Amino acid sequence: MDSEQAPVVECSKYSKRVMLKTILRRSDGGVGLIGQRVVIGGWVKSSREIRLIQPVTPHSVPAQEVVSTKDVTCSEVLQSRIPLLRSIMKVFGAGEYRVREKINVVCQPQPSVSILQVSDGSCVASLQVASVMQIHNALTWATHGFFQDQGFLHVQLPILTSTDSEGSSEKFVVTTLLNKGKNYDQISSTENAVVSVEAIRASIKEKYKKVEELNRTNSNKEALFAAQQDLKKAQELVSQLETRQKANSGVTIETRKFDFTKDFFARQTHLTVSGRLHLESQACGLGNVYSFGPRFQAVKSESKKSLAETWMVDVEMAFSELEDAMECANHFLKFVCKRISEGCMEDLQFILKRIDKKVMERLQLTLSSSFERISYAEAIDVLRHAAGKRFQGKIEFGVSLTEEHESYLVDEIYKKPVIIYNHPKGLGPFYVRLNDDGMTVATFDVVLPKVGTVIRGSQSEERFNMLSSRMEELGLQKQQYEWYLDLRRHGSVKTSGFSLMLEPLVLYATGLNDVKDVVPFPRSFGRANN
Amino acid sequence: MDSEQAPVVECSKYSKRVMLKTILRRSDGGVGLIGQRVVIGGWVKSSREIRLIQPVTPHSVPAQEVVSTKDVTCSEVLQSRIPLLRSIMKVFGAGEYRVREKINVVCQPQPSVSILQVSDGSCVASLQVASVMQIHNALTWATHGFFQDQGFLHVQLPILTSTDSEGSSEKFVVTTLLNKGKNYDQISSTENAVVSVEAIRASIKEKYKKVEELNRTNSNKEALFAAQQDLKKAQELVSQLETRQKANSGVTIETRKFDFTKDFFARQTHLTVSGRLHLESQACGLGNVYSFGPRFQAVKSESKKSLAETWMVDVEMAFSELEDAMECANHFLKFVCKRISEGCMEDLQFILKRIDKKVMERLQLTLSSSFERISYAEAIDVLRHAAGKRFQGKIEFGVSLTEEHESYLVDEIYKKPVIIYNHPKGLGPFYVRLNDDGMTVATFDVVLPKVGTVIRGSQSEERFNMLSSRMEELGLQKQQYEWYLDLRRHGSVKTSGFSLMLEPLVLYATGLNDVKDVVPFPRSFGRANN
Repeated sequence: MDSEQAPVVECSKYSKRVMLKTILRRSDGGVGLIGQRVVIGGWVKSSREIRLIQPVTPHSVPAQEVVSTKDVTCSEVLQSRIPLLRSIMKVFGAGEYRVREKINVVCQPQPSVSILQVSDGSCVASLQVASVMQIHNALTWATHGFFQDQGFLHVQLPILTSTDSEGSSEKFVVTTLLNKGKNYDQISSTENAVVSVEAIRASIKEKYKKVEELNRTNSNKEALFAAQQDLKKAQELVSQLETRQKANSGVTIETRKFDFTKDFFARQTHLTVSGRLHLESQACGLGNVYSFGPRFQAVKSESKKSLAETWMVDVEMAFSELEDAMECANHFLKFVCKRISEGCMEDLQFILKRIDKKVMERLQLTLSSSFERISYAEAIDVLRHAAGKRFQGKIEFGVSLTEEHESYLVDEIYKKPVIIYNHPKGLGPFYVRLNDDGMTVATFDVVLPKVGTVIRGSQSEERFNMLSSRMEELGLQKQQYEWYLDLRRHGSVKTSGFSLMLEPLVLYATGLNDVKDVVPFPRSFGRANN
Repeated sequence: MDSEQAPVVECSKYSKRVMLKTILRRSDGGVGLIGQRVVIGGWVKSSREIRLIQPVTPHSVPAQEVVSTKDVTCSEVLQSRIPLLRSIMKVFGAGEYRVREKINVVCQPQPSVSILQVSDGSCVASLQVASVMQIHNALTWATHGFFQDQGFLHVQLPILTSTDSEGSSEKFVVTTLLNKGKNYDQISSTENAVVSVEAIRASIKEKYKKVEELNRTNSNKEALFAAQQDLKKAQELVSQLETRQKANSGVTIETRKFDFTKDFFARQTHLTVSGRLHLESQACGLGNVYSFGPRFQAVKSESKKSLAETWMVDVEMAFSELEDAMECANHFLKFVCKRISEGCMEDLQFILKRIDKKVMERLQLTLSSSFERISYAEAIDVLRHAAGKRFQGKIEFGVSLTEEHESYLVDEIYKKPVIIYNHPKGLGPFYVRLNDDGMTVATFDVVLPKVGTVIRGSQSEERFNMLSSRMEELGLQKQQYEWYLDLRRHGSVKTSGFSLMLEPLVLYATGLNDVKDVVPFPRSFGRANN
């Protein structure tokens, strides 16, 4: 502002400029500022120059002279690198999101007026990125709001871990041995093993039997996969040895192994896939806890709903059972949908107009409907009797529900959010509680229209013997889990909880279809170029 | 509660128990519940059994019979695995944090009463871990509160990155090539290079000159270190080749290189050290932004103030300069200290009593004092004239201030928080703005009493040419930074911001001395065993 003038517009707090929203949200829409100097900062979205025969004063530019200008979408703004603008500007009076600047033209024969459409991020301004990020931000804020209101404590969980909580997924290994200047001799060790081909042949029979057995009992996929790999390895080894024509005698095999004892943490360490196990140990000391942070899965398949680096809200409650966790997940989703509906009206209006006509309807659905609760067995039953609908693959107890199945249940049958609980034992991670039927475990998924599963929850197996024998069944190395088993060893407590995947929820609230559009720097297979 | 009784105590929301605080914070302290049945859950902190000659009714146990019980501190609770308790309890009436249970004794000749001290995490209950985590949680919540109030947007920054933002520190490389079942042939490629010893000898002279030059001009440490390494490598290579007695003829050297093009992201990717660069690109589209997440440094030295995995708040503001960032950092610290002082009274009282008598005084200091602002040059001047004080190492323009220096300035000279700004060019990262003197850069550190630096901030170099030549000076590979340079290439905007290290701030507010005590699963050199 000019120092002679009384300050009619407030400056932005940590900058010498005035935010556009401060001007545009005045009751007069900024018209009262005609003739005053205001410093703003912003990005030029479009511009148009009008050459004039007669010099004009600011006041002579009639409002209707502003032509309809091209809207600039998110990707255009980010990719076309539109020049940024910081200058002393004269606000001539402004319609909504129309700010005009008179550029002082030097050495130019004819006077001209340039009309610029400017945005500074302080209001919606027809930018898709300003709306999506607003909703992303609002979801983060609402998440903390819900759990803090309910007396949960936010705890800091480790991103680097040596504990394998989920088992099934490929992980990102973290190491300092591959930094520049390191070479193989420094980071590896040589192992010599004397093996007999006969012994390996004998073991192959056993390994084959195990695979058969696992196949027949429809057991955990991870265990089956491990057994198959084990068999394959042995078969390859025998064939190698035979090729070397050294059968019937001892053979020395030299393998070079990556030596993790030389690594930063002196052991193999990877990025966390889920925070539930660590969070449970905190719940056992603090009661109800949650944690909001990044989780990682090295999944190579392309998906519009998941990324290699994703943000999750993990929740764990001491002294609670499956029913409690379902109730909490239900309340939580309703709460955040309410916050978005009420707090992001401007952004939702924009989305309604440009991206997805059904966004309000969908938020309202979650807000007002009671979630349908069906067991996994019931879900299978409904899918098997789906009239006039053919799904890929056989539908029977034990199969993992696909996006197609979930969509049918949520979008076509129940037409509202569905909670599917009590999955078959083989589909759950090792730490979930075995139900009394011996076949199913205390798990649940919350499935939303459009985006599918956003929450996975469970009650933990608090009985030491059950947990221990389950781990043996899956062939897990107990040594790695000692700290977790200790929570059970000397008395225990029932705990339940869940994990929310943030990005699908952002898709739900914005109507967009690809997570890569809602995360500023998405990480997926082959993609980490900044 | 018994179903016949009117519900005089409310149940916890996601559990069938009643929280202890619900009972203890009643105006009658729980006495009104005498004779009623309440389900609670909690951990037994200590127990004592009293054998009685005559059977007693609950009412006959006088309050003074409860002996002074041993307090259980944080580490004891976590390490001694005290058995957990869930049972139907009779509340006989309760003094503060004294809850007694009558255990039904079966087949026992003499009746007895067991007196248990129970905690369920809902109140301070003399547990250090219940207080420290409360304050940790309150700081997280207050951080979001401050920035949301000020209209900043929270944005999701990548943890996995191929961009090197700080340069100086050793990084954690992330890979999927080291998962089980992978062997060296799959993950490495062989490079053959024909080298001439004469050529290497010639290059050694050049390399030596460069080191000399860097040493003389007192330049960036990182560049000097790189040049020294480069020289050393060449010297080693020549000595190797000479040993092989193959001088004067071409020598083929075979090296096996880790082949990152075969990796998940098809390039070398590491864990983020700082989010400032990525955040700046967001600020250029959204205005004022912040991000709260984990950052990583593979630092091998033991420190009580830092960890390999740490949580930071990164802040970036478009259209703002150094002064604005300092102002924002100042307001932010005052805000969180106010929130802690007002919102965690119970926890602070506990800390005051058990850990640190000065905690309130210290929070008040930050709250009420105006931070001292001195330039780096002034700080050096003050340190050089420190009467009766001897520091390790020489104090002159260009040296990095140590904890000892900082402590002297903050604890002995100014006796309040100090902001030190305009550091020598050689101490700042490549992206900070060069001041007009050509010697210093637009950076600042906020140094607090007791814990030292908690915030590092700067204004970014917005002038493309300056940035570009600085990168050349430091020998940075521009290819990696193209996306960042693009922000400058077609017009630019001034931005400034800062990073707050959360853990030292928790130390400040709790009086503890070691970050390992305020993080549930601390990660440091050789330490990631869960």
